[in-house]
Amino acid sequence: MSTDRSDSDDSARERLIDLAADFYDQFAAGQIPEMELPTRTKSNIEYDENSDVWVYGDRTSTRSANSVRGARKLLKAIYTIDFLADQLGEDRSSTLRELYYLSESWDNEEAQFSDQDESNQLVEDLEIVSEVTREDFHMRPEESGATLMGPLYLREQTRRGEREIHCQKDVGEGGYQIPNNPDTIEFLDHDAEFILCVETGGMRDRLVENGFDDDYGTIVVHLKGQPARATRRITKRLHNELDLPVVVFTDGDPWSYRIYGSVAYGSIKSAHLSDYLATPEAQFVGIQPTDIVEYDLPTDPLADSDINALESELSDPRFQTDYWREQIELQLDIGKKAEQQALASRGLDFVTDTYLPERLTEMGVL
Amino acid sequence: MSTDRSDSDDSARERLIDLAADFYDQFAAGQIPEMELPTRTKSNIEYDENSDVWVYGDRTSTRSANSVRGARKLLKAIYTIDFLADQLGEDRSSTLRELYYLSESWDNEEAQFSDQDESNQLVEDLEIVSEVTREDFHMRPEESGATLMGPLYLREQTRRGEREIHCQKDVGEGGYQIPNNPDTIEFLDHDAEFILCVETGGMRDRLVENGFDDDYGTIVVHLKGQPARATRRITKRLHNELDLPVVVFTDGDPWSYRIYGSVAYGSIKSAHLSDYLATPEAQFVGIQPTDIVEYDLPTDPLADSDINALESELSDPRFQTDYWREQIELQLDIGKKAEQQALASRGLDFVTDTYLPERLTEMGVL
Repeated sequence: MSTDRSDSDDSARERLIDLAADFYDQFAAGQIPEMELPTRTKSNIEYDENSDVWVYGDRTSTRSANSVRGARKLLKAIYTIDFLADQLGEDRSSTLRELYYLSESWDNEEAQFSDQDESNQLVEDLEIVSEVTREDFHMRPEESGATLMGPLYLREQTRRGEREIHCQKDVGEGGYQIPNNPDTIEFLDHDAEFILCVETGGMRDRLVENGFDDDYGTIVVHLKGQPARATRRITKRLHNELDLPVVVFTDGDPWSYRIYGSVAYGSIKSAHLSDYLATPEAQFVGIQPTDIVEYDLPTDPLADSDINALESELSDPRFQTDYWREQIELQLDIGKKAEQQALASRGLDFVTDTYLPERLTEMGVL
Repeated sequence: MSTDRSDSDDSARERLIDLAADFYDQFAAGQIPEMELPTRTKSNIEYDENSDVWVYGDRTSTRSANSVRGARKLLKAIYTIDFLADQLGEDRSSTLRELYYLSESWDNEEAQFSDQDESNQLVEDLEIVSEVTREDFHMRPEESGATLMGPLYLREQTRRGEREIHCQKDVGEGGYQIPNNPDTIEFLDHDAEFILCVETGGMRDRLVENGFDDDYGTIVVHLKGQPARATRRITKRLHNELDLPVVVFTDGDPWSYRIYGSVAYGSIKSAHLSDYLATPEAQFVGIQPTDIVEYDLPTDPLADSDINALESELSDPRFQTDYWREQIELQLDIGKKAEQQALASRGLDFVTDTYLPERLTEMGVL
């Protein structure tokens, strides 16, 4: 989590090589090599009282070379470790997809990946056992693309030198583009009161056009639907390092509650990264089912898939609070959902003049 | 297409009001009001020899108030014109989705939109009959999100004043975020040889990491799949105003050829905007079906939907050249497709050290 690239690169490289050394030692001791991983299913994630996020439970599964299939998996892990260690040594980076294709150039055909799910999964496994994040392996996502606008002055370390950027004064209307690895950023100064994560581009543009970031000292982070890791990471760092509250503003449907859930509590897929990515103090602004009723918003009826998703949220450990149970049950009851832009039915300024100030006051953020 | 906001706002406003005045005059003359539009189907787009892009043909359809349905459509047009004229008068902007929701606040229920397709369609109709672009109505897209990186120095007029930005020196690794309306940009200076439009984020990041923009004087425009209007517009302006060649680099499959087609020749949906958005001189770099063979790239088999899409391209007026017929027939013959990142099977530098220099030399760009 250091902003000094070479330090974290060296330690990531060491941890990878330690993993390979473990296999070597197992061989040397006449044991069949194996790798132990937490079981990655919903029933094996649990709430951690210390960190307030969802983490893997105690159940583990073992990858062992005692079968051809298992041996092949460990062989692929070794080749991948070798590639990643070289990549870190040369200060290069690559995407998950490039890793998959690159495996075609490996001399041992048994080590090549048969599809991209397999290489993606392996990189996640390596993250878990090495306790190094993918970003510190220099693996980039395919798309990042989220932006930030607000009274924040930062320094980004790029391959071409340092850049000092004020996220209102030095950027165009599109805002500051969050890099793939936000740990290359150092926060220099700010004049912000809170962080507002916004699901849709239309609403992000509305808030910026209406000057909400200026008027309320808001750092507006565009989530772009289900947020990329980089977006969740910078949100967590802004919260932790600048001691600013985080609020999440999405559409009022079950898919959007999951977006909030992944900002606040992490996801099952990345439960091993909750400490790194999740902001458990993040609060949900709306659109709440109660808002649909209270503000009489234009709605669409819930589809069957929406109803199923809401019902599955009722048993999702991230939504086991009185607040969420009430909201979800109300929504199932009224059978309706609403988009954040539905607030425009009250006029283009309603969201910034009325809705957000009212909700944020209620929540104690303003 | 002026960069002076208020001038183009005034003229957009006048044109809209002229449309409303037409209806008024028709009423005053005792005629049933009507609006004539080009027919918007594939059979009514044709190649325009002068501008080298696909435009609507001569067939038109008429929206007339001689039926309840037609009268309702014209009523909605009038309310929308009224809203847009106010918006321009106040120097505000809004998204298509906001317009749809906003119509719920209109006093006449008959004027309210029944779904968003209807309001989207109406705004396109108004673009066509007024010959003013949606951007000049201050209608924003839901998502823009594409970025640009390269030796380009520009000035963007934002609501908060002018910003002067060098698209390598003043931005982070994420690059410069293209605003929703790139006509607010003025190009101040550049040191570029050509413009390279790239489909995927993974490849865009590879080119930037490998310093391709620096080494070859390249302005790298990230298309992010099917490019937003803002991305196509800035590409066209860079080509026209800086006199730089444009090349398009995508995956090697029929969907990606359509991405190229929309950059170069526009789309059926936006044939009325070809002059504004299309860059007919744009050339296709690859991945070509011949590249799949020549470079022996890792492939996936064509799915049925791919085959159908290729066959439909054989009859698409935008692909009626010897070049495209050969490439598409070859691809149907080999039954394979490849992603741009498949070039990584030859190593992470193959694309910047070998593939692009070879292809761009062949094409006469380098």
